[in-house]
Amino acid sequence: MATIEGNMLIAQSGGPSMVINQSLVGAVLTAMASPRVGRVFGARHGIAGILKEDLVDLRKESRRNLELVAATPSSALGSVRRKPTPEDCVTIFKVLHRRGVRWFFYIGGNDSAETVHIINEEARKAGAALSCFHIPKTIDNDLLENDHTPGYGSAARFVACALMGDDLDNRALGGVKIDVIMGRHAGFLTAAAALARTAADDGPHLIYLPERPFDPKRFVADVQLVVKRLGRCVVAVSEGISDAKGVAIAAKFSKEKDSHGNVQLSGSGALGDLLAEMIRVQAGIKRVRADTFGYLQRSFPGIASAVDAREARQAGIEAVKAALAGKMSSGSVAIKRLPGSRYAVRYEVVPLRKVAKNTRGMPAAFINKAGNDVTGSFLDYARPIVGPLPPKALLKGVRAS
Amino acid sequence: MATIEGNMLIAQSGGPSMVINQSLVGAVLTAMASPRVGRVFGARHGIAGILKEDLVDLRKESRRNLELVAATPSSALGSVRRKPTPEDCVTIFKVLHRRGVRWFFYIGGNDSAETVHIINEEARKAGAALSCFHIPKTIDNDLLENDHTPGYGSAARFVACALMGDDLDNRALGGVKIDVIMGRHAGFLTAAAALARTAADDGPHLIYLPERPFDPKRFVADVQLVVKRLGRCVVAVSEGISDAKGVAIAAKFSKEKDSHGNVQLSGSGALGDLLAEMIRVQAGIKRVRADTFGYLQRSFPGIASAVDAREARQAGIEAVKAALAGKMSSGSVAIKRLPGSRYAVRYEVVPLRKVAKNTRGMPAAFINKAGNDVTGSFLDYARPIVGPLPPKALLKGVRAS
Repeated sequence: MATIEGNMLIAQSGGPSMVINQSLVGAVLTAMASPRVGRVFGARHGIAGILKEDLVDLRKESRRNLELVAATPSSALGSVRRKPTPEDCVTIFKVLHRRGVRWFFYIGGNDSAETVHIINEEARKAGAALSCFHIPKTIDNDLLENDHTPGYGSAARFVACALMGDDLDNRALGGVKIDVIMGRHAGFLTAAAALARTAADDGPHLIYLPERPFDPKRFVADVQLVVKRLGRCVVAVSEGISDAKGVAIAAKFSKEKDSHGNVQLSGSGALGDLLAEMIRVQAGIKRVRADTFGYLQRSFPGIASAVDAREARQAGIEAVKAALAGKMSSGSVAIKRLPGSRYAVRYEVVPLRKVAKNTRGMPAAFINKAGNDVTGSFLDYARPIVGPLPPKALLKGVRAS
Repeated sequence: MATIEGNMLIAQSGGPSMVINQSLVGAVLTAMASPRVGRVFGARHGIAGILKEDLVDLRKESRRNLELVAATPSSALGSVRRKPTPEDCVTIFKVLHRRGVRWFFYIGGNDSAETVHIINEEARKAGAALSCFHIPKTIDNDLLENDHTPGYGSAARFVACALMGDDLDNRALGGVKIDVIMGRHAGFLTAAAALARTAADDGPHLIYLPERPFDPKRFVADVQLVVKRLGRCVVAVSEGISDAKGVAIAAKFSKEKDSHGNVQLSGSGALGDLLAEMIRVQAGIKRVRADTFGYLQRSFPGIASAVDAREARQAGIEAVKAALAGKMSSGSVAIKRLPGSRYAVRYEVVPLRKVAKNTRGMPAAFINKAGNDVTGSFLDYARPIVGPLPPKALLKGVRAS
């Protein structure tokens, strides 16, 4: 019989998602199933909880409650946006050592991967027997090495549903509607708005992504053209749209940065209101509305993509399996899409440095030439991850003779 | 065998809802089932479509497509915000007369009921054989004579789900979160945020309604108290909150009025941003976010309340039944709740003037003394209309020894 080799510690970091607890529960249940794993600690609020030794005993959770938590949005252990300093690393090691932690797992985006990378480098320097694994999560879908990331499919499903409803709303009352969607540097989430289209004149009619410079004059002209053609216009725009110099339009209103140097873009309606005012004044259109989707797109309960939930769970399982296999002492689980017409993925553990810090944007093949829409390639890419949307129908609308 | 007595015309007005097409389809199918009804016209964009004679032939719709339309959010015939002038009424009569319309149905809120009332009064003066019926719809839930109105339960379900997710999000990252919810004079929709609570420390922790004067100083102090107690705070606030003089706080930013004299409150993030800035500056709290739910709360597909959908359908059916019964030449269908512990309603046709123009707010018994929360009576009232919410669970979170 195998003996206990050490304890495990897991934590969550960065912006929550609808399925981040699937990864948590996948990792925890896999670890608990191994006779080699002793205690299973969860740190509250990421590395902040390790630093304060604010730890919960996950073996005290019932299987039933863990399954309910898995299906609950947002980070059940709490989250944090904090990059460890060298002093933090010293404290983290002390805590992990004192707690007999042999395996460390951190669920999050590229900033979280960087945190794992820093801790891992320090562990190597110190010669510590600590395995450090990153489990991917980001609704922005901007991690390198991944076809897509857990969290994206569900947030994208929210965005697609929201645009479907909003386009129906705009059909009813007309005018111009601007929807501001999350995405700092990557337009994947905003692009998912295009999945809402089923009829030829369905919105969103224009999509602006952070990967292309945002030109206000061009924007106004684009909207005017659509209004001329359809009498209405629905626009999906990323919170991260930037001018030709790369300065985020929304950054002009922002008051706050986190310790990774990221400016706050969400949690304010200022960008939407600015764009609406542009259309009102420069295009002379009276009924202009802007909604900023904000935190709903990453936390709304009951609408997660089934594929996304399954993959998030599996990513957690794969991380623990790789850690216990022991071939690598560190790594990040990456989702790779298999070639072929039927959607399928495999999981691969890649070096931390390959996903840490840097991010990716939408490939050029996913953006149309004019830079105001996505391509069919993007739709093919996103559909299986997002899954089926609620049905909708318009009246046939035969004009009465 | 009964002979055809005339044609029917139906239209939709005001803000869309998730279930307004249930009422449309309920009315249309009931009319089509009667041998006394000839043609079934739908006017596009409410009375605007009658004035322009922009009519569709609803008998050309398949039953199957009508059922799909019934389950689709937003007004399938298009909507309008327009109060008919005396000249409009003359034109409307000409069109209705030329089209042989004997029964006129208008689905909407109190402004729409007023429109039906005006047309009905003119019809009576002219001695026209025209029946005029109003079918209730408003997410604001502010119609007089009704226990609640179709559209409310589904929008309230969106709000409750959104707050559930948002509170989980706030648990993960802390700080103060302000959610701005629709509701011009009535706080019912904002109050539904309270349905999100299951655990003792669940948000929303504060709820501000238009029925009580909004005092900024009191608001800041309330938030500070909650933050002191829980280290975080989630606030649900109605877009219609007003100062002691009754002036809407959001009206200060608004540029636009409709022909019923309503100021635009939605489609802008300005109120949320103002409140967030108050907390930042006056309470000295760094992480403050505001989301304005905007049009998603009335149009999001796939999450309608089943009870609301059923009642919206029945309201349409009851209007046509009452019109064909012929005991009254006009009226508005009202939903009355039956006494008793098990939720049940009946439908009653009430005089148009009783629901037209004026609205109701939350009863005093639904609001706590401090004016910053709802009471248990409100929860008992709203729960059966909104229906069950998605399950959620928190970790038991036993602190590791």
